[in-house]
Amino acid sequence: MKTKPKKLVDFDLDPSDTLRVEDGFELASVDPESTPGYPGKKADGVAHLEHQDALLSELQERLFAASKGGSEQRVLLVLQAMDTAGKGGIVSHVVGSMDPQGVRLKAFKAPSDEEKAHDFLWRIEKEIPGAGMVGVFDRSHYEDVLIHRVHAWADEAELERRYAAINDFEERLMAEGTTVVKVMLHISKDEQKERLLARLHDPAKYWKYSTGDLTERGYWEDYQRAFQAMFEKTSTAGAPWYVVPANKKWYARIAVQQLLIDALEGINPQWPAAEFDVDEQIAAVTAS
Amino acid sequence: MKTKPKKLVDFDLDPSDTLRVEDGFELASVDPESTPGYPGKKADGVAHLEHQDALLSELQERLFAASKGGSEQRVLLVLQAMDTAGKGGIVSHVVGSMDPQGVRLKAFKAPSDEEKAHDFLWRIEKEIPGAGMVGVFDRSHYEDVLIHRVHAWADEAELERRYAAINDFEERLMAEGTTVVKVMLHISKDEQKERLLARLHDPAKYWKYSTGDLTERGYWEDYQRAFQAMFEKTSTAGAPWYVVPANKKWYARIAVQQLLIDALEGINPQWPAAEFDVDEQIAAVTAS
Repeated sequence: MKTKPKKLVDFDLDPSDTLRVEDGFELASVDPESTPGYPGKKADGVAHLEHQDALLSELQERLFAASKGGSEQRVLLVLQAMDTAGKGGIVSHVVGSMDPQGVRLKAFKAPSDEEKAHDFLWRIEKEIPGAGMVGVFDRSHYEDVLIHRVHAWADEAELERRYAAINDFEERLMAEGTTVVKVMLHISKDEQKERLLARLHDPAKYWKYSTGDLTERGYWEDYQRAFQAMFEKTSTAGAPWYVVPANKKWYARIAVQQLLIDALEGINPQWPAAEFDVDEQIAAVTAS
Repeated sequence: MKTKPKKLVDFDLDPSDTLRVEDGFELASVDPESTPGYPGKKADGVAHLEHQDALLSELQERLFAASKGGSEQRVLLVLQAMDTAGKGGIVSHVVGSMDPQGVRLKAFKAPSDEEKAHDFLWRIEKEIPGAGMVGVFDRSHYEDVLIHRVHAWADEAELERRYAAINDFEERLMAEGTTVVKVMLHISKDEQKERLLARLHDPAKYWKYSTGDLTERGYWEDYQRAFQAMFEKTSTAGAPWYVVPANKKWYARIAVQQLLIDALEGINPQWPAAEFDVDEQIAAVTAS
């Protein structure tokens, strides 16, 4: 129905390869303005996002269906980032294209008193997606090695314990059939300033702003170091981190969408076989 | 970007009026093929659904934002229907257009042993949406007066107790700030047969079929009576039922979409005022 059928521009290098955190990775060397592996411009990216919605949706439906046939497979997308980096946009524009019935979204806020009385993974465990689901964590157990490191709420020994506990925890998730996709949306400090100011100039966006955002911004370099340490300690072969340049929102969205598509294609979920005699049921329904 | 800007066809009578269950309502007199209040055809309805997505999304975002400013308002959409009537399609095509961050979907299945050890409203209470959220129940506490009535799992005295308990429960929800929108999707027995057969003829849909569906189909008239009794007992001034003719999926979707829009417009949520000095924050961010 478009006036001109637009030529779609696809990735020429897969984000699963180009954005993966490997040994020797340096966050400081990633340009938040870059668009690794994608040769198109904004308009191409926007069209690509919309075009790939159907594929992502179908794969997610297959995953959900496969669990009805006994598959234990599931996906967990973990989103971490500095404020304003676009986690919300990923949720509404990428996650939002999947059927809500198969998606379980959890936004982790500051822990409650009850949560604080438990180990940091206690509240996480309760939100792990079940078989067939795509779970999405907007912030996660990684807050406990990010903000806690920046503000020294945990000492070095406790941080080391947490890194190890996280790796064990994620190994168990993988053994249960979970594909873990960990994404850090990477923006520049200047870009954050622009986005904070944009919120402050639009009364419909005041509610997204908190004075605490400015406080945390004051710790920018500490956060970058905490992210770097997190990558070194928790980017594993089975559950690597992906650093997604996010100054261009359209790029971050197509990159995360592709990471989800790759995760689901890796699972390759199949429609389950009928657990009944199809012809017999057709006859019975026809006669009913 | 369309080749021809299509003329949109709107409702000429509001579903909140035409579909509402009032005194003297008879389910048997509702034609599942009808499209009350909508003068358009399928193509018009499909275009209308897409066009109204943006309005529904914006209203939902306002509701979510308002809660950050202290509003207690929320919405609960309850969906009940015979199998194949299209609850899933409402969830993916109507609910799915809203931001997942502001939506809480719960599909109620047969209760667990733990749930059965409690009053029927125990598991419902835990899933009630918080302030600012749009909660969606795919099946609900009404199963306890539908399937339970049909199979005589509850006697008449117990059913009466449940109707009254439901009305009290929903009154409390309303007093907390919840707008309750109760929808029954109404299909004909012939339409159900076609849809069951369609599932049986498509291997990608086998997982949606269960032999139990055919068993329940055998109680069709009993279900219609159970729905009729439910309407008489629980369609209240504050939380009325809406019966949505659903043989035409496109109509059911635009009707439920409009009911949600009406509920949100009734709340008329406002962007909350800034809880900080805007100019002061602009200066501080600029200097940061």
